[in-house]
Amino acid sequence: MATTTERKHIYRFEEGDASMRDLLGGKGAGLSEMVRLGLPVPPGFTVTTETCREYIALGNRVPDGFWEEFRAYLTDLEQKTGKTLGDAANPLLVSVRSGAKFSMPGMMDTVLNLGLNDQTAQGLARLTNDERFAYDAYRRFVQMFSKVVLGVNADLFEEVLHHAKERAGAATDAELSATALKGLVAEFKQIAARETGRGVPDDAWEQLQLASLAVFNSWNNPRAVTYRNFNRIPHDLGTAVNIVAMVFGNMGEDSGSGVLFTRDAATGQNELYGEYLTNAQGEDVVAGIRTPTKIKQLHEQQPHLYEQLADIARRLEQHYRDAQDIEFTVERGTLYILQTRSAKRTGPAAVRMAVEMAAEGLIDRNEALLRVPPGDIVQLLLPRFVAAAKQQALEEGRRIGAGLAASPGAASGKAVFDADRAVAMANAGETVILVRPETNPDDVHGILKAAGVLTSRGGITSHAAVVTRGLGKPCIVGATGIAVDPAARRFTSGDHVINEGDLISIDGGAGEVYAGAVDTVQQKLSDSAELLTLLEWADSVRRLQVWANADYPTDAQAALAHGAQGIGLCRTEHMFFQQDRLPHVQDMLMLAPEAARLAAGDAAARESSPVWQSYQAALAKLEEFQTADFTGILETMQGKPVIIRLLDAPLHEFLKPREEALEREIRGLSGGAAATKQEELRRVQRLHEANPMLGHRGLRVGITFPGLYEMQARAITNAGIALKRRGIDARPEIMIPLTAFAAELERLRDRLVPLVEGLIRDAGVDLHVPYGTMVETPRAALVAGELAQTAEFFSFGSNDLTQMSLAFSRDDAEEKFLTEYIEQGILPVNPFAELDRTGVGRLIKLATAEGRAVRADLSVGICGEHGGDPSSVVFCHEAGLNYVSCSPFRVPVARLAAGQAALGTKEKDV
Amino acid sequence: MATTTERKHIYRFEEGDASMRDLLGGKGAGLSEMVRLGLPVPPGFTVTTETCREYIALGNRVPDGFWEEFRAYLTDLEQKTGKTLGDAANPLLVSVRSGAKFSMPGMMDTVLNLGLNDQTAQGLARLTNDERFAYDAYRRFVQMFSKVVLGVNADLFEEVLHHAKERAGAATDAELSATALKGLVAEFKQIAARETGRGVPDDAWEQLQLASLAVFNSWNNPRAVTYRNFNRIPHDLGTAVNIVAMVFGNMGEDSGSGVLFTRDAATGQNELYGEYLTNAQGEDVVAGIRTPTKIKQLHEQQPHLYEQLADIARRLEQHYRDAQDIEFTVERGTLYILQTRSAKRTGPAAVRMAVEMAAEGLIDRNEALLRVPPGDIVQLLLPRFVAAAKQQALEEGRRIGAGLAASPGAASGKAVFDADRAVAMANAGETVILVRPETNPDDVHGILKAAGVLTSRGGITSHAAVVTRGLGKPCIVGATGIAVDPAARRFTSGDHVINEGDLISIDGGAGEVYAGAVDTVQQKLSDSAELLTLLEWADSVRRLQVWANADYPTDAQAALAHGAQGIGLCRTEHMFFQQDRLPHVQDMLMLAPEAARLAAGDAAARESSPVWQSYQAALAKLEEFQTADFTGILETMQGKPVIIRLLDAPLHEFLKPREEALEREIRGLSGGAAATKQEELRRVQRLHEANPMLGHRGLRVGITFPGLYEMQARAITNAGIALKRRGIDARPEIMIPLTAFAAELERLRDRLVPLVEGLIRDAGVDLHVPYGTMVETPRAALVAGELAQTAEFFSFGSNDLTQMSLAFSRDDAEEKFLTEYIEQGILPVNPFAELDRTGVGRLIKLATAEGRAVRADLSVGICGEHGGDPSSVVFCHEAGLNYVSCSPFRVPVARLAAGQAALGTKEKDV
Repeated sequence: MATTTERKHIYRFEEGDASMRDLLGGKGAGLSEMVRLGLPVPPGFTVTTETCREYIALGNRVPDGFWEEFRAYLTDLEQKTGKTLGDAANPLLVSVRSGAKFSMPGMMDTVLNLGLNDQTAQGLARLTNDERFAYDAYRRFVQMFSKVVLGVNADLFEEVLHHAKERAGAATDAELSATALKGLVAEFKQIAARETGRGVPDDAWEQLQLASLAVFNSWNNPRAVTYRNFNRIPHDLGTAVNIVAMVFGNMGEDSGSGVLFTRDAATGQNELYGEYLTNAQGEDVVAGIRTPTKIKQLHEQQPHLYEQLADIARRLEQHYRDAQDIEFTVERGTLYILQTRSAKRTGPAAVRMAVEMAAEGLIDRNEALLRVPPGDIVQLLLPRFVAAAKQQALEEGRRIGAGLAASPGAASGKAVFDADRAVAMANAGETVILVRPETNPDDVHGILKAAGVLTSRGGITSHAAVVTRGLGKPCIVGATGIAVDPAARRFTSGDHVINEGDLISIDGGAGEVYAGAVDTVQQKLSDSAELLTLLEWADSVRRLQVWANADYPTDAQAALAHGAQGIGLCRTEHMFFQQDRLPHVQDMLMLAPEAARLAAGDAAARESSPVWQSYQAALAKLEEFQTADFTGILETMQGKPVIIRLLDAPLHEFLKPREEALEREIRGLSGGAAATKQEELRRVQRLHEANPMLGHRGLRVGITFPGLYEMQARAITNAGIALKRRGIDARPEIMIPLTAFAAELERLRDRLVPLVEGLIRDAGVDLHVPYGTMVETPRAALVAGELAQTAEFFSFGSNDLTQMSLAFSRDDAEEKFLTEYIEQGILPVNPFAELDRTGVGRLIKLATAEGRAVRADLSVGICGEHGGDPSSVVFCHEAGLNYVSCSPFRVPVARLAAGQAALGTKEKDV
Repeated sequence: MATTTERKHIYRFEEGDASMRDLLGGKGAGLSEMVRLGLPVPPGFTVTTETCREYIALGNRVPDGFWEEFRAYLTDLEQKTGKTLGDAANPLLVSVRSGAKFSMPGMMDTVLNLGLNDQTAQGLARLTNDERFAYDAYRRFVQMFSKVVLGVNADLFEEVLHHAKERAGAATDAELSATALKGLVAEFKQIAARETGRGVPDDAWEQLQLASLAVFNSWNNPRAVTYRNFNRIPHDLGTAVNIVAMVFGNMGEDSGSGVLFTRDAATGQNELYGEYLTNAQGEDVVAGIRTPTKIKQLHEQQPHLYEQLADIARRLEQHYRDAQDIEFTVERGTLYILQTRSAKRTGPAAVRMAVEMAAEGLIDRNEALLRVPPGDIVQLLLPRFVAAAKQQALEEGRRIGAGLAASPGAASGKAVFDADRAVAMANAGETVILVRPETNPDDVHGILKAAGVLTSRGGITSHAAVVTRGLGKPCIVGATGIAVDPAARRFTSGDHVINEGDLISIDGGAGEVYAGAVDTVQQKLSDSAELLTLLEWADSVRRLQVWANADYPTDAQAALAHGAQGIGLCRTEHMFFQQDRLPHVQDMLMLAPEAARLAAGDAAARESSPVWQSYQAALAKLEEFQTADFTGILETMQGKPVIIRLLDAPLHEFLKPREEALEREIRGLSGGAAATKQEELRRVQRLHEANPMLGHRGLRVGITFPGLYEMQARAITNAGIALKRRGIDARPEIMIPLTAFAAELERLRDRLVPLVEGLIRDAGVDLHVPYGTMVETPRAALVAGELAQTAEFFSFGSNDLTQMSLAFSRDDAEEKFLTEYIEQGILPVNPFAELDRTGVGRLIKLATAEGRAVRADLSVGICGEHGGDPSSVVFCHEAGLNYVSCSPFRVPVARLAAGQAALGTKEKDV
């Protein structure tokens, strides 16, 4: 078949198998595999993905000889079916379906019923003795071909269809007569001709050629490109084209179409699950025009058919060793399987299926581990609807809409229709859900205050979706069934009207909207036995440790409950922000520049200076607080390391409240009192900075403000000593923030380490407090070898390292340009959420290697928010880090991701 | 001599030579070389720098056998001089002098007249028949030994000396009698004993041992460490110790001491120049207690001596092939040379000497090039005193003080004593010189407004020195002869009193202060024929091109006048700040976020939107201005490349004036008018950013604001086309700022390059506009290979690259911590002035290599302020860059530095 000297562009289903997914795409490989298994699949053939790549490389031209080869496979198909394409007497109809290596649902194009024209439609009517059926198929074909192949605006057809139904007094398409449908075909063809100047060709071969090329072209349509960006699917794979003989589920009561899941995709329960619609085509099931029958009822209605189907489902699950999502059609009593693929599933379902399949022996433990996307398990840890409350809401008919599941979690609150109102109501203590047609950067202040977001427009990479995922808030976008009217402050969905202040509830993991309240509950790790099991398996294989970031004993308890093996980042500045400490912190900071000058001067003058005395008093007060703070967290984490980072925060954040208070006070004062406050205000304002992120923070404060870091080092050491004396295994470590130069680290070592060692020696306890550094400036990474001379450990501050390397201010970037970058596809993801491997990752690898070259046992971790992002965790494993440290809540995600990494998952697969 | 199996620690002067500078230090090698030349040098020996290093490595312990070896060399010296250390009958006295490889004047310690005690002092009195001489020497010895070796506070001795002179009614030390001096010796010895508990040892051998160790220890005294940091001298060299038999210039009228320069160190003129003091020791010449005789007058007084000295001076200059600074002593008619070294010289002198020596054949052109520190030639380009005016001021006795030449240039203005007054007076149109005891970060606003700074305290790395050098303003620090009283708003210097508002003049290159006005003049490159010659020589050898940064045609003219070979950076944002453009710029920016949303939406809605129309009108207006701007600069630079950077500036800087104006207006308005202005203010405030340096700037603005970069690209191209049509060789290049991702650069290329090429094609002119990028984010450097796929050239923005890599905000760092870092020696220099090789330099080398690996002919330059810093220029040469681009004024500096680099100067030598 075809010329033998040429590369083979096409495979009959009989020629392929499941292993040929790269070449035949997921759908083509699946159909071939089912043919191999002897399952009833309509005959057909697949044009390879390689051909698509060739077509693109040739500047949208098929390779020489391609159509001759295609024609030969078509002839084969005609012989096999006994029908002939374009033959009015016995027409072959086919579907032309895209099918890439990775499933991209709805992203690319498909044409059904191809082969119809005025002659073959008559022939089909004759053959099936069903004129209505034939012209309905013809109408669908013209509509689909015009849209997909010719690019005609689909609304034009819907409008005409709508009018036709009105004229006929028909509620649904199914009520239209054959005559009405014939009229529609004519009208549709006129529209296509008018809009494109060429119209739908009558010649069936030309139809087939154009439709095949349209599938190739659809690989690079903007929706598909965006989808691949978002899902990190490479752009150079191309799509296959499947030509499949049509079978019809709409040929009477002994026909029908359905979908079947081998396990429940929502809960993971091991039972057949799906829907069936009598006398219908597949698209009717999807469109939801008629209510399909639950698949179980088919058992009662047509037990033979059900048994055959169930048997096939079980075979396919066994064969693929995974839950399957199967499309089938029954044509006049004969079952055809049109597609099988791995079933999409919720996080809870993924966990349950994986653990149960391992228990059943269908897969081994390692495979079970690899089956669950780590990010999906947060669905088991976020707030969710209380099952009974959701059930009640469903029964009360309060499910009023659905959209894309943009960001998981559930929330219940008052609907609000603009960002300013969201802020006002939230500040008044209300829980609100922001509802907008779509969001843009002007709405960010409202999103920050809302418990969740719902938009009627936008896709999975839209502004609302990107921002809420970053914030970890539930969000549904593209809920096209609801009509939002911000001016009137309401939305409608069918008969439901929701006004501002009315309660609504959203499940961002399922994409479902409910009227009224649906109670939510915070899930706990211990609620899910399967998840606990899965994480134990992950722990047993992973090499990368998982630590947590925790600032208070309560955080540390949460970290332990989620399985953290240490505290990788305890931020002392968070303690400084507490109400009872803040005034002392402010005093200390305001006096520090003067204290620094006193420290450099004469000792006697210093000791008698009121400024110096106040400064020392503030430090002493803070030391009390800090010693207690550290004792609490070290005691909670006993036996595990606790890395305490010395003060790092832009100073102005501490002083902003004081500045505002002073400005208010000064307005009400005059004379000497005003002057005193003015002087105080001047001290505060002297600490202002143009770019605080690059300013006087981190160890620069430690170096220039006298005694501050000494106070913290003393508090840490004394806390450790006191616990040791109580027999508690405290393991504090001191970490220096924002290092850029080895000399900075050495200077502070000379100030702090003898102090720490002196206290320990005097106390006579067995304690070593390692001295290490953050690596969060690009320069620190570039001189890691120098730093490792002094530092006993490194911790990558990937947030700051990202900020500095990309020159992206986290406070500004998202609102000003980053969201737009992602929408435009300039960046695939937010680099603050997922580590930028090429730039920041290169620095991390370089610093790890050069640090270890100097100090072989250097402990290296990461404590930015990337530590809880699955693909970043895999990167950290590959980069050879010792641990990742993330928020306590993300620890399970990191444990699973680290387990998968140990099993050889590549970062691009996550 | 000494044990032969041990390493040799000591060399007699006869054993060394000039090539042994590493081992013997500069002074020791010089003395040895002079002995080799047969010049009259007092006998002595040198302990090697290696011994010092060994001493430090052993934890401040001399190596085994060292003192035995030392004793042997001493015995040799005793035999040679016929005197014996500690022998009352015929005592040998020696000086113990430090001498490192590199001259560190005043940084380390020296003890003279060593060997004196009560017995030897009597012996010396007898031998010289001059009791006063003997006890003056003894007094000086006790004072110096106590300070240098025992660490006694020098003020204690000065106080006693002061009282003694008061008691004796003596104006100078010289008027004190032998008896009074004997009394002082006793008092001094008591002070030393009281302060240290041990006092000055009587045993001469012990004196010698202690003094030698003190010299070793002085290598690491804080002053010396700071000096080495500042001058980038390695810390591991160690110092030699020279033991030299004392000769005395204070033994009567046939004795004396002096210094001699073989050429004038101020002007470079080729004539002997120096000073001589009869009956005096060297330290008297330096201290300036008596007025020395000009060396020329010695010719008349003692022609023989003068001829001998002049002959030696000529021989030394010929021998070392460089101008020498020679110390000598005449003891009872016999001339001794105590030291010779390369003469320190001013910038103008360095240039003249180098060019003249080459003309004389003393050195070749390449050596002449290497003789001039590039940074010193700015002294020929900065404002200087008008020679006649300075002469007049000197004659009128208005030279009222001197200090350390901290930052070159001359200025004349009203004295002002605090920063706030400096700002007030400067704002009132006065030219002011800020005078302080010392400055600190609180004074920066005053320094910014002052024409120059004078402080009575502080060294070459003090706050005032560091800040003014960064600003290019004249500054003198450590002018210890003046007493500043800020409270009284005046300073005194001897009898002179300068009150606030009185005129003073300072020469920061010479460190001289004058009362009253001294006229200054801006020097031009063409004023100095020697400099022009030197730069031509540099041009003939250098490989690295020197371009200039210029924003206006006048800048470009200056650049050409200074020899620039292109414009490496034309900053379009500077044009945007001009008064006639700013309102249009503000309109455009305020409307841009809305315009961006309109651009993404429906075309019809967009065209009819008033916002869109206003936005387009503002862009059109700016395009007119920009086309004219670019035409001017391209015409000026015809035949040479002009790299134009598309808009890059933090948006808030443009909008700040508008914001302030709006706030004022709103206070006076109410109702609808106020609401309109409020809306405008809201638009402005929406562009606020927490960290503008990491925010919405550079190409991010170009990507997100529709049509802005297109407008600039069009203006650039149309300017080029118009000039080409007039037969003018315009060579514009387009540069994209702040790139971090290859995708950004590609996206803009797809928008701009077809536009540019279309205009050129339509015009039918022969023009190529290269498309390139700044490399100023660390990530850009890390992905240079990706960027070079798109960029035809790279330009390192070393200012931003430094900011991001170090996380140092330029706006904040100096005031908040950087100055203190330099004072504390954590950083040797300001990394914004001199490129940080280890961190930023590594990125530059990496990006250059990886960019060229992808595009072999990639043009690579640097356009940050480092482009005019000599050592950074040498780095750029070594890194293989094509050019440096700096301010027009620094072009000559860069040309010379590039010439030196081509001759193999290493960066550390600059």
